Amino acid sequence: MLIGALVCAATSAFAVEPAPNGITLPEGYRQWQVLAVHQRSDNTTLRAVLGNDAAVKAVREGKTNPWPDGAVLGKLVWKGVKHDRWETALAPGDFVHAEFMVKDSARYPATGGWGFARWVGMAQKPYGTDANFVQECFNCHQPVKDRDFVFTHPAQLP
Amino acid sequence: MLIGALVCAATSAFAVEPAPNGITLPEGYRQWQVLAVHQRSDNTTLRAVLGNDAAVKAVREGKTNPWPDGAVLGKLVWKGVKHDRWETALAPGDFVHAEFMVKDSARYPATGGWGFARWVGMAQKPYGTDANFVQECFNCHQPVKDRDFVFTHPAQLP
Ligand code: HEC
Ligand code: HEC
Repeated sequence: MLIGALVCAATSAFAVEPAPNGITLPEGYRQWQVLAVHQRSDNTTLRAVLGNDAAVKAVREGKTNPWPDGAVLGKLVWKGVKHDRWETALAPGDFVHAEFMVKDSARYPATGGWGFARWVGMAQKPYGTDANFVQECFNCHQPVKDRDFVFTHPAQLP
Repeated sequence: MLIGALVCAATSAFAVEPAPNGITLPEGYRQWQVLAVHQRSDNTTLRAVLGNDAAVKAVREGKTNPWPDGAVLGKLVWKGVKHDRWETALAPGDFVHAEFMVKDSARYPATGGWGFARWVGMAQKPYGTDANFVQECFNCHQPVKDRDFVFTHPAQLP
């Protein structure tokens, strides 16, 4: 089932808790530029990968290996549901989570210079019980170690 | 195959031709907020649906049936290709086209108040040989006539 839903204001009235490693929800991420769109067939999800201004600049200049300090990549994930009026279209259903990779090589040397953080669901509950949750993220990003731990190929755009 | 590519500057040095119905490529559309992400299984494509400020405001206020004059919806389409490092992920490959629906009820009464336009490929070639190309767009959007001809359900966002 599809749910038409509100895109909320950038500055929300209630505060979102920081992640267990101290990373706070990046402000204004809903307005960041889209760098790529992914679909995952294993869990039927749709994803938008977004970049803050520093990340977009890095992409434009081709300086993404490594990404510069200050670059933040965001990923918005939704369950994929069949569109109610178009048989062959998969559309966003329930919001799953928003997650981020914050490049700060001095601050996060143990995880490739990236700070990882995730907020789950519409309640934006921080993911992880303690700061070690980042091991799960970092482990999973090992297949792209040679690409500065980033899976996303910024999409072609004219 | 995946192609890492540049996200170009918002103001391009070369001019893009207007569509045969006179609509010009909306400025700064690459920076518009993402409203939804779609995947189409019939032609294996990935799509980002974006909205200009007026469209985002309309979504936030729940005023999308009809959408207000000034709202512009954009859609960026890429071929979907298997991600080179993650078996079950579909990622953006070749850029297919950017297309737009411009709400101006006085100007486009014959097509539900929407002006349609599409620019094809990285060359941004205007689609259509004459202004009648919009019939193809408008016909295909008939299944959502009762939703102001818009398929997209703006995605849930916290
Ligand atoms: C099961 C493996 C796996 C785990 C665990 C994982 N990731 Fe990822 N991540 C991926 C893959 C694969 C992609 C690219 C495809 C996609 O969109 O799913 C990705 C993409 C991302 C992106 C977009 C930038 C990029 O690298 O493409 C961010 C941001 C991100 N992950 C953050 C996180 C955070 C934060 C965590 C932990 C809280 C995490 N990831 C855990 C596999 C994983
Ligand atoms: C074959 C049917 C078909 C044709 C032809 C078609 N559209 Fe669409 N259009 C769709 C469907 C289905 C969606 C939503 C799912 C998706 O992303 O493909 C959509 C979505 C869109 C959107 C995003 C807003 C929305 O309604 O969801 C825009 C903008 C758009 N189309 C513009 C155009 C333009 C411009 C043309 C003609 C040059 C055109 N379309 C022709 C079927 C069509």
